[in-house]
This record gives sequence, C-alpha cells and structure tokens, in this order.
Amino acid sequence: MATPKPLKDAGASAPASMAGLKRYLPFLDWLFHYRRQDLVGDVMAGIIVTIMLVPQSMAYALLAGLPPQVGLYASIVPLIIYGLLGTSRTLAVGPVAIMSLLTAAAIGQLAETGSPDYVTLALILALLLGGLQILMGLFRVGFLVNFLSHPVLSGFTSAAAIVIGTSQLKHIMGISIPSTESVFELLRYAFEHAAESNVLVLGIGLGSVAILFYFKDALGGQLKRLGLADALIVPITRGGPLVLVILGTVLVWGLQLDQIAGVKVVGSIPAGLPPLTVPTFDWARWQALFPTAITLAFVGFMESISVAKSLASKRRQKVDADQELLALGAANVGAAFTGGYPVTGGFSRSVVNFTAGANTGLASMITAGLIALTVIFLTPIFYFLPQAVLAAIVIVAVSTLVDLKTPRHVWHYNKADAAAWLITFVAVLAVGVETGIIVGVIATVVLYLWRTSRPHIAIVGQVGTTETYRNVLRHEVKTCPHVVAVRVDASLYFANTKYLEDTLLRVIAERPDVKHLLLIGSAINFIDFSALETLESLRQELRDAGVQLHLAEIKGPVMDRLKTSGFIERIGLNRVYLSTHEAMKSLACV
Amino acid sequence: MATPKPLKDAGASAPASMAGLKRYLPFLDWLFHYRRQDLVGDVMAGIIVTIMLVPQSMAYALLAGLPPQVGLYASIVPLIIYGLLGTSRTLAVGPVAIMSLLTAAAIGQLAETGSPDYVTLALILALLLGGLQILMGLFRVGFLVNFLSHPVLSGFTSAAAIVIGTSQLKHIMGISIPSTESVFELLRYAFEHAAESNVLVLGIGLGSVAILFYFKDALGGQLKRLGLADALIVPITRGGPLVLVILGTVLVWGLQLDQIAGVKVVGSIPAGLPPLTVPTFDWARWQALFPTAITLAFVGFMESISVAKSLASKRRQKVDADQELLALGAANVGAAFTGGYPVTGGFSRSVVNFTAGANTGLASMITAGLIALTVIFLTPIFYFLPQAVLAAIVIVAVSTLVDLKTPRHVWHYNKADAAAWLITFVAVLAVGVETGIIVGVIATVVLYLWRTSRPHIAIVGQVGTTETYRNVLRHEVKTCPHVVAVRVDASLYFANTKYLEDTLLRVIAERPDVKHLLLIGSAINFIDFSALETLESLRQELRDAGVQLHLAEIKGPVMDRLKTSGFIERIGLNRVYLSTHEAMKSLACV
Repeated sequence: MATPKPLKDAGASAPASMAGLKRYLPFLDWLFHYRRQDLVGDVMAGIIVTIMLVPQSMAYALLAGLPPQVGLYASIVPLIIYGLLGTSRTLAVGPVAIMSLLTAAAIGQLAETGSPDYVTLALILALLLGGLQILMGLFRVGFLVNFLSHPVLSGFTSAAAIVIGTSQLKHIMGISIPSTESVFELLRYAFEHAAESNVLVLGIGLGSVAILFYFKDALGGQLKRLGLADALIVPITRGGPLVLVILGTVLVWGLQLDQIAGVKVVGSIPAGLPPLTVPTFDWARWQALFPTAITLAFVGFMESISVAKSLASKRRQKVDADQELLALGAANVGAAFTGGYPVTGGFSRSVVNFTAGANTGLASMITAGLIALTVIFLTPIFYFLPQAVLAAIVIVAVSTLVDLKTPRHVWHYNKADAAAWLITFVAVLAVGVETGIIVGVIATVVLYLWRTSRPHIAIVGQVGTTETYRNVLRHEVKTCPHVVAVRVDASLYFANTKYLEDTLLRVIAERPDVKHLLLIGSAINFIDFSALETLESLRQELRDAGVQLHLAEIKGPVMDRLKTSGFIERIGLNRVYLSTHEAMKSLACV
Repeated sequence: MATPKPLKDAGASAPASMAGLKRYLPFLDWLFHYRRQDLVGDVMAGIIVTIMLVPQSMAYALLAGLPPQVGLYASIVPLIIYGLLGTSRTLAVGPVAIMSLLTAAAIGQLAETGSPDYVTLALILALLLGGLQILMGLFRVGFLVNFLSHPVLSGFTSAAAIVIGTSQLKHIMGISIPSTESVFELLRYAFEHAAESNVLVLGIGLGSVAILFYFKDALGGQLKRLGLADALIVPITRGGPLVLVILGTVLVWGLQLDQIAGVKVVGSIPAGLPPLTVPTFDWARWQALFPTAITLAFVGFMESISVAKSLASKRRQKVDADQELLALGAANVGAAFTGGYPVTGGFSRSVVNFTAGANTGLASMITAGLIALTVIFLTPIFYFLPQAVLAAIVIVAVSTLVDLKTPRHVWHYNKADAAAWLITFVAVLAVGVETGIIVGVIATVVLYLWRTSRPHIAIVGQVGTTETYRNVLRHEVKTCPHVVAVRVDASLYFANTKYLEDTLLRVIAERPDVKHLLLIGSAINFIDFSALETLESLRQELRDAGVQLHLAEIKGPVMDRLKTSGFIERIGLNRVYLSTHEAMKSLACV
C-alpha cells in the first residue's frame, strides 16, 4: 500500500510545519495517536465494507454501462487517497448509484455502451470531476453546494432512485430496452414487451430481490432472537449480496444456464491490479463532459459531506468541507489514472463502516487492500455471475433512497418548497437526471426570487404616545393625513424593487392629501444597484406628484452606500432621520 | 387601414361593458375624447417616425439576415395592432437592432442566410414570441422581467450594440466575414483582411457614417443658430438616414457603381402590400427556436416597457405592464402573418415620436399607413441603394446604446453588481448575445445568493438597565457567561442556512461555559424548509454539546410555520419568548 512513504516524509518534517501539514494531510491527526484497540474496529469494518463493496462496485459499474472490473478498480486507489486526505474517519468512498447513473447518462450520448471509447470517456469524466473538486476546495467555494436546497435534493434523490431501479428492468426481465431519458416511456415499453421476458432470468432476478430484502430486513431480527452477538449479525446481514453472488454463480455454472437458457453472465474479467490509465486530452469531449462533471461535483459532494457530517457529529469529530472537496477530488483523479470512474462517499456504505466500528482512515485502506486481493485472485470466479443478480443488488440498494416522508413534511411546511420538490421529482422522471436537477435548481431560485419579490410592506402609526410605531392594520395607532410612514420588511434588490415602487405609488395615489412619504429602513439589510435606481426614479415620480420622500432608521452600511451614490444628497440630508419618531416630530405629525 | 371596423364594433357595444372593453382595448380611452388639436401632433409624429423607420426597418432587416422588405412589412400591421391594444400612446413599435441581432443569431444556426427557409423561420420566431408574450400577459407574469437586474441589462445593451456595430463591418468594408459568436474573433479577421476591402464601398460606408453623425449631432445646433423653428429642425435632423438613402441611391445609379465597382446594392424589392403568410408548424424547429423566443420576450419587453413608462410618466399617463405584453404579443403575431419578423417598442424611435408631438395611438397608425404606401409605390427606388449605407445607418443608430457611464456608477456603488455588469458585457462579446445574457442572469442570481449567504449575525447584550439589546461589538453592553444571545439580520433560506449553523456552532465552541443559546428572530421574515431542517439539526448538535436552544422575537407568520412543523414543540414552548428581555430574565441573565 502507499501509506508508508508519505508517512515517513511527514514524520521527518513534522516538527517544522506540522499544523500546515495536518491541514492538508489529515491522516497525520490519527496516525500519531493510533491506539492498538482502534485496530480491531478498523479491521472489522474494513472486512465488512469489502463484503458489501465487491458485489456493489461491480453492480454499479454495470449500471454505469461499464465492465464490472472498472467498479472494482474504482474501489482501490481512490479509497487509499481518501484515507490519507479525507477529514472524515468513517466515510466509505467508492462507486455510488447516482454517480453511476449520471455517468451513464452523459457518456451514453457520446459513445456506444461497452465500447473501449466508452471506458476512456469514464476516465476523462473522473479526471474532470476530480480537477473541478480540487479547484473548488482550493478556492474554498464549498459553500456553493448550499445552493442545492433540501427539497430539490430530496426530490432528486427519490426520483433518481426510481430511474436507477427501472434502468435495471432489462437485466431482470432479460430483454433489451431502448435507452430513453423518460422513466414513463421506459415503463411503457417494458410493460408492452413483458411477454418477451426470459422466464428463467426473471426468476433469478425476482428471487435475488426477495433474498436481498430478507437479508436486509428480516434476518437481523431472527438472528437476534437466536441470541447472536451484534458483532456477528452485522457482517451476516450485510453479506446478503455476497451470498447471492455465490448462489447465483454456482447455479448458472452448475446448470450451464448461460449456454442453454441464455442467462446473461458477467463473463471474463481480466485478473490483476488496475492498469495505469492516462485520460486522453480532446477539447471537444472535455467540453461535452464538463456540464456533467459540474453536476457530479455537486451531487457527489452533497451525498458525501452530508453523511460525513452526521457521522462525525455522533463522535464529536469535525469534517472540513473544503478539505473534503480536495480529498474527493484527489480520489477521483486517482480513479482516472487507475482505470476507475467517478467515485464519492457512499451513504449506506459509510453508515455500515461506522457501525462496524471504523475508527480511522485505516479502515478504508484495509478495504482497498482486500479489493486489490480480489481483483488479483478472485476475478475468474465471477465469470458465471448472472447480471440479473447484480441488477437485483442495485435495485435493493437504491430502494431505500425513495423517500416519501420528506415531501409530506415539505408540503405541510410550505407550498413553495413543496413545488420545488415536485418539479424536481417529475422533471427527473420525465426528462432525465441531469436536466432534472438543473430544472429543480432553477425552480428553487425562481420560487425564492418570486417569494421575496413581494416583500411585506406595512403602513405604520404611533402607538399611544410612545415612540414605537406599528402596523396600522394590526394595532391601535395614530396617523396623520399629510404624512404616510411605510416600513419595508426586506432588503431591496432587483427582484422586489418594482413591487416596492408600484406599492408606494399606489399608497400615494389612494391618499391625495399626503405630502410626505417616510420610508422606514429598519429591516433593510442592503440595497442593490437596481433598487437604488428604482429609488431614484421613485423619488422623481413622487416629486412630480408633489410628494416629498424621507428616510428613517437606515442601517449604517446601507447609509454609506446611499451616500457614495449621491442619493442622500439628492433627497437632502435634512430629510434623513435616525428614528421614525424623530421624523414624525419634524413632519409635525406628532 | 384597419382602424374603422373595430372602432364601430366597440362603439356599438360601448354602453354594455365599457370598462371591460377598455381594459383590453385601450384605444377606446383616447378615441372618444379625441380632440382636433391632437391630430396635428399625431400627423406630424407619424410622418417623422416614417422618415426614420423606412431606412431603419430595411437596415435592421439586413442586420437580421432578412431581405429589406421584411423590415418594411414588420412596420405596418404590428404598428396598427399596437395602436389598438397598447396602453402607451407614444410608443413606436417596429423592428429594433437588438431583436434583429438575436433573430439572426438564432436563425443563422438553422438555415442559410437569404434562403426562403430563413424567412419562414423568422415568421415562426415572431409567432412563438407573440404567443409567449400573450401568455405572459394573460397570466400576469410581467413581474418576471424584474429578474433582469439593471447591471445585467446595461452590460447586455452596451455589448450587444458593439456586436451589432461590428457585424456591419463586412458591409462597410465590402468583404465577406465568416460568422462567429465572438466579437474578438470577428475583429481579428476584419483586421487581417483589411487590405482586401473594396475601397469604394469603404468610402461610401465611412462617408455615410460621417454624414449621419453630422445630422445627428451637429446640424441641429447650426439650424438653431440660423433661427429655424424646432418644428422644422426635428424632422430635418431626423431625416439624415433618408437623405443618405437618396444620395447613395443616386450616386450608385448614376455611376453604375453596382456594375463596374462591385458595390453591393439592395436589389429588387417586390412591390405591393405584405402577403398573408402562415408560419408552418414543425415541432423540431419550434423547439429549436423556443429558447430564443423566451430571450426575445424578455429583452423586447424590457426595452419597450422601460421607454413606455418613462415617456408616460412625463405626461402623467400610466402604462399597464401586463396589457403591454398582450399588445406586443399581438403585434408579433400580426408580424408573423404578414411577412414580418419580431418587433417591439424601439427606444430612440419612441422618443422621437414623443418629442414630435404624438398624442395618441393614431400617430403609429399614420406611420403604418405611410409605410404601406411606401411598399406599394416606392420600392423600385431602393434597387440601387447600397448596403453600405444601410450598414452605416445601423452603426450610427446603435452607437448611442454603448453606455460607459452606468458601469462606472455601478462600480462605485457596489462591486457585486459591477461584477454582474462586467460578466454580462464580456460574455456577450465573447460567446454571443444569447448565451451572454443567460450567463449574466445566472451571474446576478449566484452573486445575490452568495451575498445573502453570509448574513450579518450579531451577539447582543443589554444596554445599561434598559430593555434594549445591541451588538456587543458596537455598544457598551452587559452580557453573562452562561447565555449567549444572537441576532440574525436576514431571513433563513437554503443559501445562508449552513453559514448560520457553522457560525452558531463556532460561537458555542469559543464559549465553553455557555449553557443557553438565544436566537433572536426580529429580522427573520421567513424560514424555508432547508433552513428548518438546519435549525432542527442545530438544535440536536447544541443538545449534544450540552447547550439549550431558545427563541425570542419570532414574527407571527414565521412562528405559525415553526409550530405546524412541530419544531416549537421539540424545543419546548417554554423556551420561546416574546422579547429578548423576557428571555434574558427567565435565563437569570439580568
């Protein structure tokens, strides 16, 4: 493994700039305080994750339209790199369903599935993704992922899971289904051609799904009732896929189902460690893959950081978003040069890693080592592994991603967010994952702008003889005919500035004897240039209508801006007041 | 002309539902109070606008890659329709530079310039644009245009003007320049091939530009000094293009420059009124043109509404954004069926119409009539009109659109808006008008989200013994070690929620003896679902860290939401206070 060397170097220069080193090589953190009792957990977790990862990585590669070994290759070097650079000690990096799906969607348009060209494009995509994430990390723009709102992510994940599940139908039914961006079309086709499905394949597929669900949901409880220790239950229940792989392989091999019944099998997988691969440079293709790389950078990072954070907080550990971007980026670059394809921290796998007792990055390095041994010695075994089994593994793995609880909460909480969820969900199902998430993001932003484009604007009056002024609609307050005092409960920016103008002009139009309009800025945190220009035209329109504009309670930073722009000068400093009460006094209103 | 008929109908049903009718047929407003003295201004304005429009419409058609008559056709029926449906009485509708450019950019990718197919696509585009604007008007989504921020519009307009100007170089130089999206490439090519330019054409082109600038900038002053009446000066100075058209035509015809010197001329234009054209339906093409239709709908409406509003306010008249959308939409549909192409209210032309004394929509109907007479009787004259002259007309027309004052103001006022301006400006020059404006819009939104993603968060303390609490950094205040009170000066939504979480956790981490965190919501106008989930996880993280979350001064609507979501229940109603002071008291802090 690659650990020892950098370790020594680090040790050498340790006294010098340890802090700086630790920032970029977080493994130094745990390495020097590594305790023997940590090892048990790390080894245990490493083994259990391997049991999960071997079949999963091949299944996800299949989902991505890549040969199975690519999935295994993507589970070696990237894991080691993340183990060295990642700030999460329990994140399990490797191929994940959604990334595989996005990869397939993007590359499928540029090359024939299964062609060597297809594999090359996967390498390029991994490299682009890695480079992008590294840049995002260096420029500390990790915050950008916050622009993916929760409703959009939730809608996207659920819909993507359905897209993934349905994409496996062809393997389960043993028929070929023309690729389409729309799940609805795919289901219609599958339904129309259900009769043509290979009964034997269908049997293997559905049987596999049943067995997997049994392992996942039922077996654990039964073993508990038999009084088995959790330390044993976890690996057993998580071993479902592996057991299935063995069963399926033996079955097909024994009865030669691949020969006589046309059951599609994985076929021969080259033995040995991943080859050194160098992604070719080709401007046109890089351009074509770039948008997908961006999507992957965001989606992958979101999945990874969310699980990393939740696991870290459980043990009072911290993860650093920007360093995580660097680590995942490096991992993907690693994948690009060792015959892999885009990877990230997987959700369920990380949880398993955590519960199985992983204490440090060593756990994922152990996994990497075991996967390496697998590709060196065990690949021949997988020859007779039926694709239907892998498809079943994918389906059961993603089944947990379909979440219908969140949308119900969102709907209860607020309809705009619910709309964003629904738009994303439907868009992903109807027009595909990539377009879908983009539509979702645009929808969120437009809905947000729309919602903030009608800020709450209150006409206020004096409460009794106090110095406090409240909404005339909600409180018993005193006002006077020649002055109208208006409080705007929002910052003024391009999307709400027109609404403000129209509202204020209407207010004036409805009150012919008003001579002064007082704008109260207590809730205005900033005023952008568009809003400034609108204020200027508003000032003029009011003047034309014989109404004088006044300002009160403008916050310091906002005031500075208005001064530099000359706006304050134009309305006259004597018309700008610190408090509403002051303004009302000088306007002879109180 | 088409006016009399609808007029009678309207008159007939007038008593019945006048109000409803007037909403959708604004011309009824002025028709029934039409005074004889209005006529003078309307006729005068109608003539002057015609003088401008005849050469301009042909020039813009050329810019759009369409035969000149298409520009004239687009200046007949659309003007009549707008005269009937528009709420502005002085807006001069017709072909405009930017719309022509966008049309060329979009259609140029689908058909060969000058091919009949190209013309058909222009009709389809006009129809799509019209339909879109009508829908926008009916659904009253005119507010959407506010999402185009002023900096983006300013940057777009200036850059587009440059793109338009440079696009005319080939006509001025008399060479053919390969079409490119990048102005920089175009200029490089033009520079490299400057030697090949036709000297005679170049002479005509530059001479024309000089004459036009003379008419536009110098002549007016001279005539004034000669004591000429403004009523005469305006038509003369605006007549520059027309004079030039006559000069150029006579010159080429007299010296047969088209034959001997290869000076490109307009050539034969079919005489007679526009033919009835029916845009063909072809899903693929409609799809291809749809994005451009959207851009045109926004850009066209922006140009039109802004000039309409500013002119209307000068005369205390009102324009209704949604009705304007209907009117422009109908005008474009009209263009689609009478051999035209996308139109909107032109800026300079409307100003001329206004200053020339237009009082009602009759002015543009008169213009339409005169243009109709032109296409019936005068088209043969234009045969020898050199394209270089039309190019010069375009260049001088757009030269006024390049505005470098605004960016300086923006830069002074606020760097984020300046960035948006610059990004839009450069993008339009580098990657083309359509991509450019989209890039600009995205930039504005991202910059806005970024700016609001770091809200101002203040730790507050008690001022003396009062009930007011202020920022500890700005004021002399009392705090106590076991409670930290935090005020967030922004609504909580997906883009700033992570920042809030991180900040509060850091605040806690820096204050080990803090047992209670009080969140003050006086400036929180809403909390979206993403923020709600973050608050929930924040609550748990704080609990894990042994810190209790409390809320104070949560606004009514926000409170309702938090209650329905069960969040209030989870933190405990007894931990929610009406005022900060109340909270501090019950936390034994004061």
